[in-house]
Parts: sequence; C-alpha cells; structure tokens
Amino acid sequence: MNSPMIRYILGYVLMLEAALLALCSLVGLIFHEPVGWIYLAVATGALIVGILLNLRKPRSTVFYLKEGCVATALSWIVMSLVGCLPFVISGEIPKFTDALFETVSGLTTTGASILSEVESLSHVANFWRSLTHLIGGMGVLVFLLAVLPLSGAYNINLMRAESPGPSVGKLVPKIKFTAQILYTLYLGMTFLEFILLMCGGMNWYESICTAFATAGTGGFGIYNDSLGSFTPYCQWVVTAFMMFFGFNFNFYYFLVLRKWRKAVEMEEVRVYLITILAAILIIFIDIRHVNGFAESLRQSAFQVASLVSSTGFSTADFDQWASTSKCVIVLLMFVGACAGSTGGGFKVSRIIILIKSAGREMFSYLHPRVIRQVNFEGKPVDKDLLHSVHVYLVVFMLIFITSVVFVSFEGTDFATTFTSVLATINNIGPGLSQVGPTCNYGHFHALTKYVLMFDMLAGRLELFPMLMLFYPAIWKDVFEKRSIDRKVRQRRLTTGQ
Amino acid sequence: MNSPMIRYILGYVLMLEAALLALCSLVGLIFHEPVGWIYLAVATGALIVGILLNLRKPRSTVFYLKEGCVATALSWIVMSLVGCLPFVISGEIPKFTDALFETVSGLTTTGASILSEVESLSHVANFWRSLTHLIGGMGVLVFLLAVLPLSGAYNINLMRAESPGPSVGKLVPKIKFTAQILYTLYLGMTFLEFILLMCGGMNWYESICTAFATAGTGGFGIYNDSLGSFTPYCQWVVTAFMMFFGFNFNFYYFLVLRKWRKAVEMEEVRVYLITILAAILIIFIDIRHVNGFAESLRQSAFQVASLVSSTGFSTADFDQWASTSKCVIVLLMFVGACAGSTGGGFKVSRIIILIKSAGREMFSYLHPRVIRQVNFEGKPVDKDLLHSVHVYLVVFMLIFITSVVFVSFEGTDFATTFTSVLATINNIGPGLSQVGPTCNYGHFHALTKYVLMFDMLAGRLELFPMLMLFYPAIWKDVFEKRSIDRKVRQRRLTTGQ
Repeated sequence: MNSPMIRYILGYVLMLEAALLALCSLVGLIFHEPVGWIYLAVATGALIVGILLNLRKPRSTVFYLKEGCVATALSWIVMSLVGCLPFVISGEIPKFTDALFETVSGLTTTGASILSEVESLSHVANFWRSLTHLIGGMGVLVFLLAVLPLSGAYNINLMRAESPGPSVGKLVPKIKFTAQILYTLYLGMTFLEFILLMCGGMNWYESICTAFATAGTGGFGIYNDSLGSFTPYCQWVVTAFMMFFGFNFNFYYFLVLRKWRKAVEMEEVRVYLITILAAILIIFIDIRHVNGFAESLRQSAFQVASLVSSTGFSTADFDQWASTSKCVIVLLMFVGACAGSTGGGFKVSRIIILIKSAGREMFSYLHPRVIRQVNFEGKPVDKDLLHSVHVYLVVFMLIFITSVVFVSFEGTDFATTFTSVLATINNIGPGLSQVGPTCNYGHFHALTKYVLMFDMLAGRLELFPMLMLFYPAIWKDVFEKRSIDRKVRQRRLTTGQ
Repeated sequence: MNSPMIRYILGYVLMLEAALLALCSLVGLIFHEPVGWIYLAVATGALIVGILLNLRKPRSTVFYLKEGCVATALSWIVMSLVGCLPFVISGEIPKFTDALFETVSGLTTTGASILSEVESLSHVANFWRSLTHLIGGMGVLVFLLAVLPLSGAYNINLMRAESPGPSVGKLVPKIKFTAQILYTLYLGMTFLEFILLMCGGMNWYESICTAFATAGTGGFGIYNDSLGSFTPYCQWVVTAFMMFFGFNFNFYYFLVLRKWRKAVEMEEVRVYLITILAAILIIFIDIRHVNGFAESLRQSAFQVASLVSSTGFSTADFDQWASTSKCVIVLLMFVGACAGSTGGGFKVSRIIILIKSAGREMFSYLHPRVIRQVNFEGKPVDKDLLHSVHVYLVVFMLIFITSVVFVSFEGTDFATTFTSVLATINNIGPGLSQVGPTCNYGHFHALTKYVLMFDMLAGRLELFPMLMLFYPAIWKDVFEKRSIDRKVRQRRLTTGQ
C-alpha cells in the first residue's frame, strides 16, 4: 500500500476544504455575521494541516485500485470530520454526531437533515450546507484531478473509486482533461440555473444555494418548507435542472461537440426519460383529483424529478399520497439517476444491464445452443462488467439488509425503517412515514445515525471503497508497509541513481 | 416443442389428482360427510379426462428443458384448476377466485388462506387442503417420475423444472430411483411425525392433517388459532419437524447410507442451523420479558422454524412483537430453507453462493492478480452456476417489485403490501400487518389475488417455468409445431422403419 501517496492526497483534500470554508467566511462578511470568523479559523487550521501533510512529496506514484479506494474513502471521511467543526463550534448544531450527520449528508448529496427547521440557521451555515452539495456532487477528487499536477497513469484509479456507474467513462484519453471537461459542464449548468432563478425574482443568495443543491442533486433547502413557497416558475426551473443533473454527463459532452446523433441515441438517457415520464403520468393520474390540473402536474413532475435524481427537494408532502403513488416513489428511489451524473441510486444503466441479462437467461432456456450477447449503448457488455453489476446488486442488498436490521432496533414502523435506509444509501434524503418530507432524522439514536452515515458514504462511493475500510488486511498494509518509500529510496541507493 | 409429450404428462397429472381426490372422499365416508361424493365426482371427471389425454402415446420422447418447464408450469396450473372445483361445487368456498387461491396456496405449500375461519369447513375439505401440501411439497412430477415408466434420458428436465435449488441434485444416477428415494424419505418422515403427534394425545385426523402440512412446509391449519391450542409437547414436535423438512434431503440420504461424516459436513445444512439458532436467540431475548422462559423459548423457536422453513404455522401473533423481532422475521422469510428440501424461499445455498461471490469480488480489489474460486460444499462453483444464481436474484427482484406495484393499488399500508408479496413468492403464508398470522388474504381484490397466485406458483417452481408461459414464442411452438409427431412419423415412413 502506497501510504505516502494517500497522505499526499489527503493534504490536498484539506487544502481544498480550507478554500471552500474561506468562501463561507466571505458570505459571513457580506451578511455581517460574526459566525463567519469560525469558518475562517477552521479553514486556517485545515490549511496548516494540509500543508504539513504535503511537505514531503511521495517518491513512488504507483497507485492501484485499492489505494484509489482507500484514498477516496478516507478523503470523504476527513472532509466530513473537518466540515462539521464549524457547526459544533458555532453551536448551531451543538452535538457532534448531529453535525457530522449533517455534513456527511451534505457531502454525499443526500440532503437528509437532523434539523427540524433551518430558517434560524445563519446565512453562512446554510451556504456551507449548499456548498457541500456542490463539491460532493461531481466529486472532491475529480476536482483535484482537474486542477492539480497529479501526473501518472494511476489517476484513473482515483476517478474510478469516486465516479458513479458500473464503468468509468473517460471522455478523452487524458484523465485530467476529462475531469476538467466534467467540471466545466457542471459549473456551467449550475451557473445557468442560477441565472434562470435570478430571473424568477429570487435574490442572489437564494438562487445560489438552490442552484448548488440542485447541481449536486443534494436537497438541503434554506426554507423549512423546502421549495414549497417558491413561485411555480422557479419550481419548474428546479424540476428541469434536477432532471438534467441526473443525465449521464457524456450526453452534454456530445452536445458540446455537436454530435447530436450520438447524444440522442444514448440508451441510458432515453430509458431515464421514459421512466420519468411514466412516473409523472401515474402519479398525476393518482393525485389529480386533489389539486387542479396545473398544480397536480407541477407537483408530480417536481417530486418525480426530485426523487429519481436523488435530490430530495419537496413541494408537497408525498407521504400523504395514495399508496400507488408512494409505491412509484419507492421504486424511483431504488432506480436513481444515470451513471456518470451527479445523482445517486442504483443507476439506470445497471438496471438496464440486469434486466437484459435476465432476458438473455430466458432466451437461453428456449434456445440452449444459441449464444446471445447482452448489448448496452450499442456495444456488447463484456463478461467482467456483467459480473461486476451482478455482484454490485448482491453487495447492495447485503448492506441494505444489514442496515435495516440495525435501524429496526429503533422500534419505528416498517416504512420508516425501510425508507430511511433506502433514502440514505441512495443519497436521496426524505423517505416515508417518520422520515417523510415534513420530518427529519433528528429523532434517531446516535448509533443509528452512524449506520445511516455509513450508508450515505457507501452509497455515494458505490459501496466498495467504504467496505474496504472494514477489511483488516488493508490496515495491515497501511501501517506495516509504510516502507514503500524507504524501499524505493533503498533501491535507488543500491542501483546508484 | 414436443406438445404430445406435454399432453401425455398432463394426463398422468390428472389421474394422480383423481387418486388424491378419491382419498378425500374416503375421509368423507369415515366422517359421514356427504360432501365426500362431490370429491368423488370431480375425481371421476379428472380420471376420464386424464385417460382421454393418454389414449395416444407420443411417438417422440425428446424432451428439452423448455418442454420440462412448460410441462411443469401447466401441470401445476391444471392441478390447481381441478383441485379448486370441490370447494366451489360444495359451496364451502363459493367464489371461484377464492377457491383457486386456496388451492394454489395449498399446492405451492404457501398456506396463505382467504378464509377467516377454518373450523366450520368439513373434515373432507380440511383434509384436501392438507393433502395438497403433501403432494406439493416434494412435487407432483417428482412423484410421477418415481412411479411411472417414463423412460428416457430426458426426465432430468422435468425434475430440474420442479425441484427447488440452484442445481438439481441427483442422489443416484437414475432419476427414477432418485425420485423414489426422495419420496420414501419424505413419506417416512411424515409418518414418524404422525406417530409422534398421536403419542402426544392428538386424534388421527388432527395428526395426519398437521403432519401433511408440516411435511410440505405448507401451513394450513385445521383450527382457527393455527397451532396455538396444541400442547407444548406437540408444538415442539412440529417445531422440530418444520426444521427437519427444511433440510436438504441429501442430508437424510447420507444418514441412511451411514455416511455420517458427509452428512455432518454439509455446508448448507450447517449454515441453515446456525441461522435458526441465531434467530431464535435474538427473538428470545427480545420477547422474554413478555412471557416466561419456557413459553418465550417455545414461541421463538416455533416461529423461527415455521418462517425459515416457509411453513407458516403460528402459535403467537408475531405481528405484535417488537420491531427487531419483526425485522428478523422478515429476513428469515427472505432466506427460506435449504435447496432440495420441501421448503420455499430464496434458499440457503443461493445466499451462501451470493455472499461468497461478493467476498471474492472484494478480494479481487485487493489482489487483482490472484484468481480465487468460489467454493460451495467443498467443490468449486462453476461459472455458469454462479451466473445463474445471480440471474435468479435479478429475476426474483423484478417479479417481486412488479408484484409490489400491483398489490399497492390496494391502498394498504407498506408492511402489508411488502410482506404479502414476500409471503406468497417465498411460499410462507402469513406476513405482517393486514396479512399477519391472525389475518387472512380474503380482503384483497380479485386481481390482486391473481397476482399473488402467480407469485406463489413462480416461487414454488423457481421463477423460470412460470415466466416461460408469458413468452409468446413458447405458445407459437406449442400450437404451430404440433407437427413433431407427424415429422417423426414421416421420417420413419421415408426411412422405411
């Protein structure tokens, strides 16, 4: 295990977080909120530790997938631990567990809150909550890959560990450029939403926080009723962007390159859109008698876009809807967004591949001698990928079931237990019943909160990086084989380099 | 598609059912219940149709897996359709859908009832309900394979379509003998339970019905409180036998052959036992404050054995237990019994293989160059089997989710919707909330009942045979290519045979 390289990456992660916290203190200055100084102090601390960690450059840049996974998991944990400090120090969320839950929820773009109301928070705190969504959405390490001179052919392993989807999509051969293109598209779209919301009469602060939370498909709102009090125009803008941020970003890259045909032919995006339209239709029919035509359509479209993209904003209390709508909602929560988007969930592409592989099995019963390939996006799915998607489902189920058992110790009803795990592992936010859109996660026991935090991180990093931390052999590697640097040095000495 | 062969098998299935129904009319004679004549009439009808179907022997005995699947699915459907007639004609269950639901539930050894009380039923009807469990448990076609002169190397495809588990276990090279050994063990154990229950002071009728329902891991009781009013001794006997019938029958075969070591080393049986003991312990701790030590232990052991073996008897209303116990119960319902047993569920062996394959994936992240095999029962699991287990999970999930959507139209609460599908697809019987042990399935809409009937059959036949009926190509084969007989005749004519 290349521990020095992991340390080096953690250093950069801390420096990045310092910059983000400094940005928050700027908001404090604008709103004349003294709490901003706390953010500046934490930023300074993070910066100093970051610089210390980076004093010595690692000699070896050899970096395998396991290092990528461990580095990613540790980066996210460190980000969360540091990011919750301002909440605790300022006393806005006095309990450490709660503050950590809120930060993990923000970074993983879950949007599950322990707060019963958010309007009494300072502007700085709400800005920081939204900002965690922005950085967590596209990824901390993807950002670092875009801006840092981290050379070497090994970066793909960092990207692979952090990016969502069954296979990592390199847009261009160089990882650095891929990361830059992704972040440009991402921030460009966020800016576009910001402008459109400003045009709808929202002030810059509301627009920026909402745009950040939509971009990361996070779901932290700055008002107690989430987006319920926004104008219909603003709600439609947010609906559209929640959907857009759930697209596979390759789609936008094709659009930018004017490869219209390739963009339109993307199987995953088409299935995603069909799913959304079908769900809107079902829910619209189910709830249309309660409100008028326009209101019902807006509510169903908003809720569907919010849950399928794993954002978790709400304009209506869908926990009060009829059971068919609720069932559609739970299904949407399972499906999630496209791979290569900022959304969570099981991912549309995985579901397409699973269904197709089941279809092939049926076919092989009928025609045992004919070998049929599973195709996805016009290309045959190779055996290893198919196997890894199957294993992903198994591991997902195992984590899901284990978590449900732990949460069941709470003694809450079945819907609460089930959907609280579902809403955290798929990074959505609100579930049903006691974790419904009008409720929060504050009433859970601290241990339950840690289980759900694990689920949020595991869901965001696609299971394996987080699971790896529970593998004793990994830690033996990290602590015992610190010698990789020394080994390299020794080899250089003996060969006289 | 060899349609004449399927017709031929269906004929035998009807004759077998006629014999079973005739047995019921004998019970009618003993208890002086005129309703017995109805059973005799239906038996006669079934016999005549069966004989008519078998008038002409098929010329070709070529019989592939798809024929095996279609024959099995159709056999079970025909059995159910004929088996529900006495209920409808006698007026004991006047509605056709309800009667069919009850019969499907019996044959698939689910034990989910639409009756709010069973004590007013005639002895004949209750005997028939128990008898369907007995024949459904080990399998209709396995019985036919044991007694009929169905020659040919193709019988394995019938066995494969009806037997539970990821791979069909031939005890001895010849299918006929395997089927005979299985049925001998099965009926022997049923007889042993019958004797032990008689010793406990139950009358012959109670003992026989209870033994039949335990043997098939069915769960239809003959009293309204299921087994709640039985003596502790009888409850313990049933507990033990529910557990025993969930064992892989290879275990007993090894015992009979005095291969003690091989029996003890069976991985699936050991995991099954550990699961049971762990579950009993957790539930015992959870409920011990409510009742005394002995009562709590008996209740937890009984309920665990009943649900993990997918029997579905109850001595306590576990829907009233704390949420941890309920969660364990739902998990047990998922797991199910061993492959090669009479129990339902996902099967212990499949879960072992899935968990091991997930573990191997983790291992390959850490050691990308080392290839590690997945071992089960001391042998490496080949790739095709691993793949088929993965696909089974996917298809299971798809059917499960689709069914939940359909049932959700009922508007019942989440626990009812979810566990009604779970309890039917895994052939258990009772679920939680409105389908809990003190409730029944009578309140559902007819369409929902058909969905659940499909789930019961799909679960009992391990998904693919039932799914195949929805594949249009199959029906094209059945109706268009009736010519296989003609083809064979023609070939014989041209070759001068």
